[in-house]
Amino acid sequence: MTKSGVKKVVLAYSGGLDTSIILKWLEDTYGCEIVTFTADLGQGEELAPAREKALKMGVKPDNIFIDDLREEFVRDFVFPMFRANTLYEGQYLLGTSIARPLIAKRQIEIANMVGADAVCHGATGKGNDQVRFEVSYYALKPDVKVIAPWREWEFEGRPDLIAYAKKHGIQIAQGKEQAAPFSIDANLLHTSSEGLALEDPDVEVPDIVSKRGDRRTITPEEAPDQAETVTLSFERGDLVAINGKPMKAHELLAELNRLGSKHGIGGLDLVENRYVGMKSRGYYETPGGTILWYGHRAIEQITLDRGAAHLKDELMPRYASLIYNGFWWTPERVMLQAAIDASQGSVAGDVKLKLYKGGVRTIGRSSPYSLYSKALVGFDEAGGYNQADAEGFIKLNALRLRILAERDKKRGKNE
Amino acid sequence: MTKSGVKKVVLAYSGGLDTSIILKWLEDTYGCEIVTFTADLGQGEELAPAREKALKMGVKPDNIFIDDLREEFVRDFVFPMFRANTLYEGQYLLGTSIARPLIAKRQIEIANMVGADAVCHGATGKGNDQVRFEVSYYALKPDVKVIAPWREWEFEGRPDLIAYAKKHGIQIAQGKEQAAPFSIDANLLHTSSEGLALEDPDVEVPDIVSKRGDRRTITPEEAPDQAETVTLSFERGDLVAINGKPMKAHELLAELNRLGSKHGIGGLDLVENRYVGMKSRGYYETPGGTILWYGHRAIEQITLDRGAAHLKDELMPRYASLIYNGFWWTPERVMLQAAIDASQGSVAGDVKLKLYKGGVRTIGRSSPYSLYSKALVGFDEAGGYNQADAEGFIKLNALRLRILAERDKKRGKNE
Amino acid sequence: MTKSGVKKVVLAYSGGLDTSIILKWLEDTYGCEIVTFTADLGQGEELAPAREKALKMGVKPDNIFIDDLREEFVRDFVFPMFRANTLYEGQYLLGTSIARPLIAKRQIEIANMVGADAVCHGATGKGNDQVRFEVSYYALKPDVKVIAPWREWEFEGRPDLIAYAKKHGIQIAQGKEQAAPFSIDANLLHTSSEGLALEDPDVEVPDIVSKRGDRRTITPEEAPDQAETVTLSFERGDLVAINGKPMKAHELLAELNRLGSKHGIGGLDLVENRYVGMKSRGYYETPGGTILWYGHRAIEQITLDRGAAHLKDELMPRYASLIYNGFWWTPERVMLQAAIDASQGSVAGDVKLKLYKGGVRTIGRSSPYSLYSKALVGFDEAGGYNQADAEGFIKLNALRLRILAERDKKRGKNE
Amino acid sequence: MTKSGVKKVVLAYSGGLDTSIILKWLEDTYGCEIVTFTADLGQGEELAPAREKALKMGVKPDNIFIDDLREEFVRDFVFPMFRANTLYEGQYLLGTSIARPLIAKRQIEIANMVGADAVCHGATGKGNDQVRFEVSYYALKPDVKVIAPWREWEFEGRPDLIAYAKKHGIQIAQGKEQAAPFSIDANLLHTSSEGLALEDPDVEVPDIVSKRGDRRTITPEEAPDQAETVTLSFERGDLVAINGKPMKAHELLAELNRLGSKHGIGGLDLVENRYVGMKSRGYYETPGGTILWYGHRAIEQITLDRGAAHLKDELMPRYASLIYNGFWWTPERVMLQAAIDASQGSVAGDVKLKLYKGGVRTIGRSSPYSLYSKALVGFDEAGGYNQADAEGFIKLNALRLRILAERDKKRGKNE
Repeated sequence: MTKSGVKKVVLAYSGGLDTSIILKWLEDTYGCEIVTFTADLGQGEELAPAREKALKMGVKPDNIFIDDLREEFVRDFVFPMFRANTLYEGQYLLGTSIARPLIAKRQIEIANMVGADAVCHGATGKGNDQVRFEVSYYALKPDVKVIAPWREWEFEGRPDLIAYAKKHGIQIAQGKEQAAPFSIDANLLHTSSEGLALEDPDVEVPDIVSKRGDRRTITPEEAPDQAETVTLSFERGDLVAINGKPMKAHELLAELNRLGSKHGIGGLDLVENRYVGMKSRGYYETPGGTILWYGHRAIEQITLDRGAAHLKDELMPRYASLIYNGFWWTPERVMLQAAIDASQGSVAGDVKLKLYKGGVRTIGRSSPYSLYSKALVGFDEAGGYNQADAEGFIKLNALRLRILAERDKKRGKNE
Repeated sequence: MTKSGVKKVVLAYSGGLDTSIILKWLEDTYGCEIVTFTADLGQGEELAPAREKALKMGVKPDNIFIDDLREEFVRDFVFPMFRANTLYEGQYLLGTSIARPLIAKRQIEIANMVGADAVCHGATGKGNDQVRFEVSYYALKPDVKVIAPWREWEFEGRPDLIAYAKKHGIQIAQGKEQAAPFSIDANLLHTSSEGLALEDPDVEVPDIVSKRGDRRTITPEEAPDQAETVTLSFERGDLVAINGKPMKAHELLAELNRLGSKHGIGGLDLVENRYVGMKSRGYYETPGGTILWYGHRAIEQITLDRGAAHLKDELMPRYASLIYNGFWWTPERVMLQAAIDASQGSVAGDVKLKLYKGGVRTIGRSSPYSLYSKALVGFDEAGGYNQADAEGFIKLNALRLRILAERDKKRGKNE
Repeated sequence: MTKSGVKKVVLAYSGGLDTSIILKWLEDTYGCEIVTFTADLGQGEELAPAREKALKMGVKPDNIFIDDLREEFVRDFVFPMFRANTLYEGQYLLGTSIARPLIAKRQIEIANMVGADAVCHGATGKGNDQVRFEVSYYALKPDVKVIAPWREWEFEGRPDLIAYAKKHGIQIAQGKEQAAPFSIDANLLHTSSEGLALEDPDVEVPDIVSKRGDRRTITPEEAPDQAETVTLSFERGDLVAINGKPMKAHELLAELNRLGSKHGIGGLDLVENRYVGMKSRGYYETPGGTILWYGHRAIEQITLDRGAAHLKDELMPRYASLIYNGFWWTPERVMLQAAIDASQGSVAGDVKLKLYKGGVRTIGRSSPYSLYSKALVGFDEAGGYNQADAEGFIKLNALRLRILAERDKKRGKNE
Repeated sequence: MTKSGVKKVVLAYSGGLDTSIILKWLEDTYGCEIVTFTADLGQGEELAPAREKALKMGVKPDNIFIDDLREEFVRDFVFPMFRANTLYEGQYLLGTSIARPLIAKRQIEIANMVGADAVCHGATGKGNDQVRFEVSYYALKPDVKVIAPWREWEFEGRPDLIAYAKKHGIQIAQGKEQAAPFSIDANLLHTSSEGLALEDPDVEVPDIVSKRGDRRTITPEEAPDQAETVTLSFERGDLVAINGKPMKAHELLAELNRLGSKHGIGGLDLVENRYVGMKSRGYYETPGGTILWYGHRAIEQITLDRGAAHLKDELMPRYASLIYNGFWWTPERVMLQAAIDASQGSVAGDVKLKLYKGGVRTIGRSSPYSLYSKALVGFDEAGGYNQADAEGFIKLNALRLRILAERDKKRGKNE
């Protein structure tokens, strides 16, 4: 007997073993019509096989959606996030988090198109992704039904899943019968690795992770002995060209990834705080994003006013947490984005970065809108800066502290 | 005729040409008794000559103060600042800024001891240091008279100064007749270079700066081809041992400097926003501080609660600006310090860092107070984490967003 | 058959109908030993009957705990909160929220004393109180079992509860068979009313609520035509005397309640955002707290430095949300409290307030530690304030904006 | 001999004695052409006489500018500020501060029109207004020359000024020879009183201030014994109608002033922290603004999402300080405004307020965009709120605290 109440579900479907099992389980459990949605976010896998597999699993051709979202991903999610110089917990570039609101948005759009009443994702019950997907679903389609198989089904471990797959004739790729020693999530911005092989935070990330075949970046030790200088061009806070060559947003990020990977940039071993409450250790590879972060900081150094820069820095941790926790589609994220975007109008110009052995060093920045240019230094002579002004500036800034010290002296207070 | 109103002044005196000229100028201009104060903050210069020079300039032996402040500097200023993972404008470790409040404090203590009514510093009229010194002076001794020669005297350039020095028989070391192509500030935490040779932010820091004889760190390209792993031990948020060897605070920082310098760590080319209003380009070398920053972040990763960690990250930019601007001796800095320190009680344990070609990578962390340990993961079984809880967690976190979406749907709002 | 796994439970027991039903239901459902805990937080009910009722319900004398927590409540919870001038969503004095962490703390202390493995509260499943209690329980005793009857039992409405009570011989006071048109929570700081009679936020709070017999404050219209002036004395940020008369903390608050109630002060009709996601309308009566808020603001006006004052104002909304949401026993609340408390050392002196027809007006403030006193104004003459300083102060504060305007002019930017 | 370097100056000219003296002094001192600018911001004085006086002082007709800025003032400055529920230091509605950027903007526009190279204001050298004017001037016209007569001239007190006026045939209105016991600033939003009669913060505001002829509001004691209910209608966060009657922005504020004044609303006795460093005591009358503040809060209660509401509350103190300090025309104020405005799209509906004896009480609010409406409460049944969800919500919110408590227990830590 099937669970009731779901007529048509849009499943985020990769074509892999896990989501294939989910597809079958949805049919078994809900007896509903199934629509698959497979997105290209630059994870580096071919999508064509996903169509074949879905067809083979019995999904109707009209119910198979395969979308290339790479440009939208970088243009509307990655770049806006980098405008804020976003780092979660001081170090993490949020590569997984930032992809979730787009996947959820597209999934809901498809649900609306095909008249589906439910959506389903393959995230586990202990991680952040379930939150990011589901909060986004609800924010975009408040009456949607959400199916989270990993929290619902009765399978108790890998063997149960494999048995179920075999029973239903689902193809099991070689080596997939055993649980992987670590799990991977990838998109154009980054690759994250988590799990068994990484579970002791006192043991260095093992080679099977950091030197695996499909890694995103090499280790600094493997990188060339020769530094390479790259020039990034920005407009309105966004990257628009590399070494003078304009490209689409996703092409720019791909090119940065190529450069970063070549020089061993962007590997990060981190223990972070999950929104669901526990600490988690991951190994993140964000070669292009790391370069972009330094580049954006560098162009802001000469084009952004101090007041705007400091306000941005103060708002950033909050903004980062919202993205990490899955609250992209919220009024408060929109408010912060409005503030951030309002600061970026003149964040334009060129930045020169030196890439070497895992490091990114700013070595030059120029801009038609520079607040540092010699013409502006010359401004001084026209009265912009008069050394004598410093005295008054200091005196009035210190006045409250002098009054305070006078008071405390009278009081006999020593602190 | 001398300016009136100053009887005895405490001068921050390095023994160099500039402060020697100031010493003479003070006598000439104010006709007051002069007390010199020379501090060892680990800038790497011998202090003994300063005494000789002061004597030669006619300062009374009892009026010469030479203090080794290195331990106090690291213990009471550098370490508290690193508890907050402090970075100004996202990248700068505040090496110059953090030394100023201590120098000012000691200068005022001496003024109180010797009954001086004035203090004098040698910072120029366009920089931040004048603010940092003077705001600190006023906060600690509200009725003090402050003499800032660079803002007061009539000398209009280097030739005037040199002429004055010659006229008064002040010894001029070789090469000091011309203005230096860049100026340097140094202490145990860092060395900063600023000025002419660095004034075009689009031109890479030249070798005369980055490869000068007394540099604090080498370039990544010069560093050894072999990575080195170092273990840092923390207690209550402060570094207490390196590779298992406990040392005093200032010895620890010196050892980190040695390690960082060897591996080309801690060079930073930055354009920053000065408190007095303009942008400024500097080259900063903070080898030990850079390692310490990564180490402290790493130990916090496993020992600090998420709520505390995120609050710290949100408060940090404000705290950094206060230090950069010279407001160490203020109630608001004290308040922020109280909050930060209240979070550090269990920030203890060992961190393993890999140093290589300018980079610092965390490769392990352990702690008796870990919030990540296996014992705590085992906690799950006792009911700590139940996958089913995630559904309620998500549903209630999403509730307001569902209500909002329902409202906006009715309204026909598309955004 | 009873649920397993609970041996001894500490129940927050008021002696009323609802918690009596819970007591019985616990026995029936869990078959465990029951300990009752009844606290006097100044809610205005006699506690003696609670003992009688518990005995009658079969609780062992040693298992009945009745504690007068009024002093601890005001001294360690209410006063610390008022040091921050705390208001939730700009207007609410958090009267209910601030009592919860104390009740939870005492309940856990008792659980530890008697060796109980579980605690139970009577808060419903739609409100904030369940969160506040349970988060506190878990934070103080991580392995405790929490029983929340309203979320667990199968009763579907008032009639089910009444039937159950009758079946078990629980005494039902007159008028209690029907659901009340609104529910009340009370303690020494405030009374809140919520529910049916208040559910339309466009309809004025009805007289059955605002003019009920046991109301905490009268309406402004009912208040005397004559204003009354009261003097509050503070030390270290806390109220210590009223009209020159020192009293214990809880006596002070009681006296402020008497004064506020007499003058119709402290009624608030509010729609607020609950932590569990929906909006809720309540009518809050906080007569003494309202007076205290104005008094504390007034004494800070003359004794608190601007830097401290502004930082406090910026931290306050976060602090208020933490308390509202039930996160008193968290590292981040402790951090904020440390910051707030660090600012209060000189917040001392006398404030005169005029009470009239619902309003509180500050009409005077004085302090031995005033930062405003004439002696300090006289300080000006000694050089504290020189009008000429203003020019430099303005010029350097404006410098970055001039550079920016110059840039934008060149750019032809009109905004 | 006149000071050199100024050719044409735009003077903010009220037509009163002080600015007439300034007009003459400018001629004498700078020998430059003078343009007068008189603005109507609703201060309640006739402007026609200003033209007559300027002509009589010898100003050319083409050089006299008299502008009615009331609508622009309320629409583009007051209303945007109230969208943020702005209060400086918890209580002050910023009536003086918010007028300054508009006056400065118009003055600079006129300077650009007439080709003036300088501007002049009549604010004193100890207050905030000089900062607000001059920072705005510089931000809008970076090369402008600023003349601040009160900081420049040699007059040492009132008698000097009067003598100068007499010498130059400037008409002295009766009673103006002596310094006023307090000074007043007025516009459509408020009236502020400061000075001698108010200088002891422990003495109640005297009747000559609070009961003067041209006061903006009466005292609560004088107000009618009958409460009055008023309905305010909002669109996109701004007031659009009173009691159902749409009016222009400045007419709305005038009508609120009439209502507030009638009921004794909006008087505030405050000691605040000036930007120039000292504390200052003022008496502020903001009758309409006070009503508007409560009205805006009330409509946000039902139409604004929690996330947006809390973020706004956290940003507000910073935004208030920017306005108070005179930094309206800055990137950071623009950023905050962008965030605030992005939250106001659905802040629309009606609010009922009861005005009585100085108090404003919200008694009802309704909105087509309510997030509270019964239709949305009904939403629950469709799965919006399930009591069982609360358990998971609480458990995961508490998880980090349980882990922490477990750790601290092991550690033997008692705090």
